[in-house]
Amino acid sequence: MLFLKLIVLTTGGTIEKTYDESDGSLENRETILEKEVCKRLRLPTTQLEIHSIMKKDSLYMTDEDRHHILQEVRGYLPLHAPIVIIHGTDTMAKTAEYLQAQLGPLSVPVILTGAMRPVSMQDSDAFQNVTESFMAARLAPPGVYISFHNQLFPAGRVQKNKDTLTFEWKK
Amino acid sequence: MLFLKLIVLTTGGTIEKTYDESDGSLENRETILEKEVCKRLRLPTTQLEIHSIMKKDSLYMTDEDRHHILQEVRGYLPLHAPIVIIHGTDTMAKTAEYLQAQLGPLSVPVILTGAMRPVSMQDSDAFQNVTESFMAARLAPPGVYISFHNQLFPAGRVQKNKDTLTFEWKK
Amino acid sequence: MLFLKLIVLTTGGTIEKTYDESDGSLENRETILEKEVCKRLRLPTTQLEIHSIMKKDSLYMTDEDRHHILQEVRGYLPLHAPIVIIHGTDTMAKTAEYLQAQLGPLSVPVILTGAMRPVSMQDSDAFQNVTESFMAARLAPPGVYISFHNQLFPAGRVQKNKDTLTFEWKK
Amino acid sequence: MLFLKLIVLTTGGTIEKTYDESDGSLENRETILEKEVCKRLRLPTTQLEIHSIMKKDSLYMTDEDRHHILQEVRGYLPLHAPIVIIHGTDTMAKTAEYLQAQLGPLSVPVILTGAMRPVSMQDSDAFQNVTESFMAARLAPPGVYISFHNQLFPAGRVQKNKDTLTFEWKK
Repeated sequence: MLFLKLIVLTTGGTIEKTYDESDGSLENRETILEKEVCKRLRLPTTQLEIHSIMKKDSLYMTDEDRHHILQEVRGYLPLHAPIVIIHGTDTMAKTAEYLQAQLGPLSVPVILTGAMRPVSMQDSDAFQNVTESFMAARLAPPGVYISFHNQLFPAGRVQKNKDTLTFEWKK
Repeated sequence: MLFLKLIVLTTGGTIEKTYDESDGSLENRETILEKEVCKRLRLPTTQLEIHSIMKKDSLYMTDEDRHHILQEVRGYLPLHAPIVIIHGTDTMAKTAEYLQAQLGPLSVPVILTGAMRPVSMQDSDAFQNVTESFMAARLAPPGVYISFHNQLFPAGRVQKNKDTLTFEWKK
Repeated sequence: MLFLKLIVLTTGGTIEKTYDESDGSLENRETILEKEVCKRLRLPTTQLEIHSIMKKDSLYMTDEDRHHILQEVRGYLPLHAPIVIIHGTDTMAKTAEYLQAQLGPLSVPVILTGAMRPVSMQDSDAFQNVTESFMAARLAPPGVYISFHNQLFPAGRVQKNKDTLTFEWKK
Repeated sequence: MLFLKLIVLTTGGTIEKTYDESDGSLENRETILEKEVCKRLRLPTTQLEIHSIMKKDSLYMTDEDRHHILQEVRGYLPLHAPIVIIHGTDTMAKTAEYLQAQLGPLSVPVILTGAMRPVSMQDSDAFQNVTESFMAARLAPPGVYISFHNQLFPAGRVQKNKDTLTFEWKK
């Protein structure tokens, strides 16, 4: 049987915020992607490798944080497996542009995704977005992309729209 | 804003079986794709057009039924929009081959999908498979395919495996 | 801390039917009450003791089966803990009457419940009915009852209504 | 057919907090009990009457707020229907004691409940607690109670435990 390796790097973001019943806060505490999303997917031929490399709301990501993500991506590129990065939506477009500028030529797609509503909530778009990004990882040509709400955007051509609560082509 | 039309043709199959509380039967009675799957997806730029063209377990599909599906697909091709066909898994590979043989050159992808477990049940793979097929409809080149469990197979190269409960490359 | 023991005897019924992805059948195969219902309940002071004593659609329950249930109930009565019996709906009223006639004086409530839709399906009433029966087990006086859809009926005064898909007072 | 009226008064609390996708806040904005809980319950013989009388985190409830709740309860008592009050957990015990002291003799149970986790989140205890409170409303004698996690406590005998994240008997 043929297996396709897929690297997933989680950095936090709304998608991974969890609720604390003692104080009622909703924050990035631990990675829950594997437990809450991946184990509900049927991936009979996918070798999933999940690494939690950061636990941050992307509003508070620094240049140093982005450099750290870049280093992690660089470390996994020699495996020639597609890479999905779970990321907060607020600065996802910025990180995508940065990665594209720094990474140079690629042999695989590097796809960023996240969610408008935490995966721990009813009606979250997390399951949809992650599922789509995993399919895009199978089908997209090498490059850096944002996958969101049934669309795949090349880095540099995409922005978050805070009114429509989704991503759109940059004007 | 740019909208992408997506045609969805439902034919029944396990994915759309519903439970009758009076007699305890699980059968194809009505199309539930829209209510149970599509309305839970966020598709801000997708113009979804859903048509229920058949309500059959694919085990009982006849040559005539396949011809009917072919005619429906032909009718929608002039819209130049990708087409997703919801179909039972037992003869999905056969219908895909038939469509490929009959349709000739295409300008859009025609993607068949379904599920091993009805969408009306917990742990169904319906939501995953439909989500993936909608993303594949955005990304795949023109052709006839089966999309299933994070894989996209060209028609004629794919078969159902009743032991592993998924689709696989045909030997 | 004060703990209240609660005995749960599962006999099968619609509530515990599971789906086989190979052949598409929906049948009583194993007890799933603990995994699918009880582990989702918060019962900080309840000592739950679950025993699977039968795996039957209640349509096919024989007099011998009912005698077996009676013997099991009798075996647990000396613990002075309320007993909940998970049972198919079709002959639940009959089993309740039989138990009441045979058991004689009681020191705890014995409560039968089940569901119109398997717990493995979306929109099942299983979680509601089990939750209600566990609360009734805390509050009801000694006796044999059917708990269903926010009602508690004494054995002998209750019947299934196949049109309204619930239980009702017997005329 | 016999119908039982049940009055539900919602005051807000964790149970009804909703998520704002623009700013990521989790707050009491609107009553969601009917849509998210009650419509998923099967209540064939219950005449449910839901009134949203406040939208507050109970940490911020004032004496005036409690007086307002009291006035609302008094207004519905002449209907001789059980009353369930949806309330934040932090001061639920205080409101229960206040109502008991002020209300005097009762002909129906008045039952307070809520949740440790918002109903809008996965693994919320809201559905369980509301289901239990509706069953308790059927079975409990007249009086003021807190219903929570499969227990029914008389007002004045109960306190929240912030470590075990539930309610317990007051020492």
